[in-house]
Amino acid sequence: MYKINENYLNLQGSYLFSTIARKISDYQQANPEKKIIRLGIGDVTQPLAPSIIRALHNAVDEMGTAEGFHGYGPEQGYAFLREAIAANDYQARGCDISPDEIFISDGAKCDVGNIQEIFSIDNRVAVCDPVYPVYVDTNVMAGRSGSYSAAIGGFENLIYMPCTEANGFVPEFPKEVPDLIYLCFPNNPTGMTITKSGLQDWVDYANLHGSIILYDAAYEAYISDPDVPHSIYECDGARTCAIEMHSFSKNAGFTGLRLGYTVIPKDLNRNGVTLHSLWDRRHGTRYNGAPYIVQKAGEAVYSEQGKQELKAQISYYMNNAKTIREGLSAAGYTVYGGVNAPYIWLKVPGMSWDFFDYLLNTVQVVGTPGQGFGAAGEGFFRLTAFGTYENSVEALARIKSL
Amino acid sequence: MYKINENYLNLQGSYLFSTIARKISDYQQANPEKKIIRLGIGDVTQPLAPSIIRALHNAVDEMGTAEGFHGYGPEQGYAFLREAIAANDYQARGCDISPDEIFISDGAKCDVGNIQEIFSIDNRVAVCDPVYPVYVDTNVMAGRSGSYSAAIGGFENLIYMPCTEANGFVPEFPKEVPDLIYLCFPNNPTGMTITKSGLQDWVDYANLHGSIILYDAAYEAYISDPDVPHSIYECDGARTCAIEMHSFSKNAGFTGLRLGYTVIPKDLNRNGVTLHSLWDRRHGTRYNGAPYIVQKAGEAVYSEQGKQELKAQISYYMNNAKTIREGLSAAGYTVYGGVNAPYIWLKVPGMSWDFFDYLLNTVQVVGTPGQGFGAAGEGFFRLTAFGTYENSVEALARIKSL
Repeated sequence: MYKINENYLNLQGSYLFSTIARKISDYQQANPEKKIIRLGIGDVTQPLAPSIIRALHNAVDEMGTAEGFHGYGPEQGYAFLREAIAANDYQARGCDISPDEIFISDGAKCDVGNIQEIFSIDNRVAVCDPVYPVYVDTNVMAGRSGSYSAAIGGFENLIYMPCTEANGFVPEFPKEVPDLIYLCFPNNPTGMTITKSGLQDWVDYANLHGSIILYDAAYEAYISDPDVPHSIYECDGARTCAIEMHSFSKNAGFTGLRLGYTVIPKDLNRNGVTLHSLWDRRHGTRYNGAPYIVQKAGEAVYSEQGKQELKAQISYYMNNAKTIREGLSAAGYTVYGGVNAPYIWLKVPGMSWDFFDYLLNTVQVVGTPGQGFGAAGEGFFRLTAFGTYENSVEALARIKSL
Repeated sequence: MYKINENYLNLQGSYLFSTIARKISDYQQANPEKKIIRLGIGDVTQPLAPSIIRALHNAVDEMGTAEGFHGYGPEQGYAFLREAIAANDYQARGCDISPDEIFISDGAKCDVGNIQEIFSIDNRVAVCDPVYPVYVDTNVMAGRSGSYSAAIGGFENLIYMPCTEANGFVPEFPKEVPDLIYLCFPNNPTGMTITKSGLQDWVDYANLHGSIILYDAAYEAYISDPDVPHSIYECDGARTCAIEMHSFSKNAGFTGLRLGYTVIPKDLNRNGVTLHSLWDRRHGTRYNGAPYIVQKAGEAVYSEQGKQELKAQISYYMNNAKTIREGLSAAGYTVYGGVNAPYIWLKVPGMSWDFFDYLLNTVQVVGTPGQGFGAAGEGFFRLTAFGTYENSVEALARIKSL
């Protein structure tokens, strides 16, 4: 008689954004005449840039001809894309990463969720609090978390690293040394960043203790400050302790196109077994590569024209961020983030789910309650800059009217 | 100090098709003037059909406009595609499957590899021998297999069900009752099928013992015999014991476009926990949906024109199958499959890897050695009908010349 994976029963509630989607849908059904402004989920709104559209059309045309048809591609991704990434995202920044250390996937969410599989169940996992829920939930499903404890507002076997106003939303080294450390900068949800020297401290810590840093760099395209690193490989020694994950969703609007990548330096190994070989085997066995046409679209991201167009898109979103941040600040709110990241982390009066319901019911603005990202997120609220400018301005006016 | 997932160290060699690719590449490098004909990997060669190309272009155009842009879609897939699948692949065949029991993914290989995650590590797993390697390797990685034993030519904790000439390549009930049973019909690699009454016996067996059948229906589009079922849900009682996985790779040439789906009837549950809810949670947490443009291409598969075009593609491949099968048969070889499936299972003199090397080195034809699919595959060789007609004829002539 078959048995289910009982680790799933430890999961708390439904996935955060599914819960929010249901609340919105219920409200809209009850109030069909109300216009809801969604600054909740981190989904982009600008259409794909012209050079990406052009690359897609060209690749589609290829697929309709006998000579241009592409069937199964390399599971690790086409060389043209791995080379463009290595050159632009790494070598141009002085990072020593080669194309064959880059694994193309259908999105950073998948990679971030899958990466824990190549590690033993026995590893102790550290996450920031608040945190992107996927890091936690995938470890719960795998059996690394233990049970949920209402008393600690988290899972018994996870190590939580609070990111608070007091520490500038940058985690401190935990009391117990973790084996796997999830870090995300610029941060989702707080929109705050880490300096290069701050990240260097974490790299040194990981190398000292034999820990692995799983570095989520999904929002690096939004960095403008020169002392904020775009990649963990800007730090000395990161090749022996860090795996980095990237998305095309936030820098190029691929949320509906699905493309991402993971970097696994060949220096990472335990007793002679490289993590590169384990991930390579996982990719080969459980994955069949990202669609050729989507990889061609990814290549266009690194063309000169593509870079220009995407720079303009990011400026557009960051202008929204500035508008929301400065507007809320002027209205007397305490706000964080929104400078090197498309998220604004707003301090709210009272509980964050109450604020969510209040905002939805009163002025029809949707954000994400901080508590949904962890116990230390309570009292905060995430707003995204990914809406249109008009909606950002309108949402701001509505919140100010409260 | 972090620890790796040591289950990976139990894996045998590299993934089968990676090994073959390396052998081909080595040979071609040493013999650049030789023209190799590849009938090894099950990859299609016909370009995407016109109605699919049209759907892709239209969807790409949408993505370039503010109104038509699609960001994050539902993780489970768009309703338009789930509804088309339910209507065409199930309801039209009298199978009681609803759209919300269908989960869209980026391919059957991923689903087939991921599905084991919602089950406990303690389940006993049965696979056919020979077998598509992904079923085995993903269970090895998860820790269900135990160690490899050269003496049994397989893993200690897996239950192997030999598919041989003696049983017509249809597995018999194993001595020990398995919890999870992988079945694939029409079969990869043998190209053989099961009758509806034969499959009904397996459904009854699973219901009797509380087992789950993981049914891989990737090749159902190649069925022509009326007594061969297209779906396991044609059998009575399958809703309480079966999960079915489908590919768009073989019926519509999506090997490079990536689309598949898994059906999980809501009747499947253990102590009140439905497998549907577990898979739904996995999809929501670890996946972000297939690309919108690819799902629109999938929708075109079910249009009237799409159906016509794909029927012609399948006839083309099945004409190759007939040519190879009848040609080899006339030349005195014993062949199986190739009637309701695009694979021909050829009985070879001696060991199958020797035959592989001999064929590659002598006449530059590539197939897949049966031993790569399991111990019971030794002495056989898989040829696919997915090449061009010209190459199929040429390969046949070369083999006959031996």
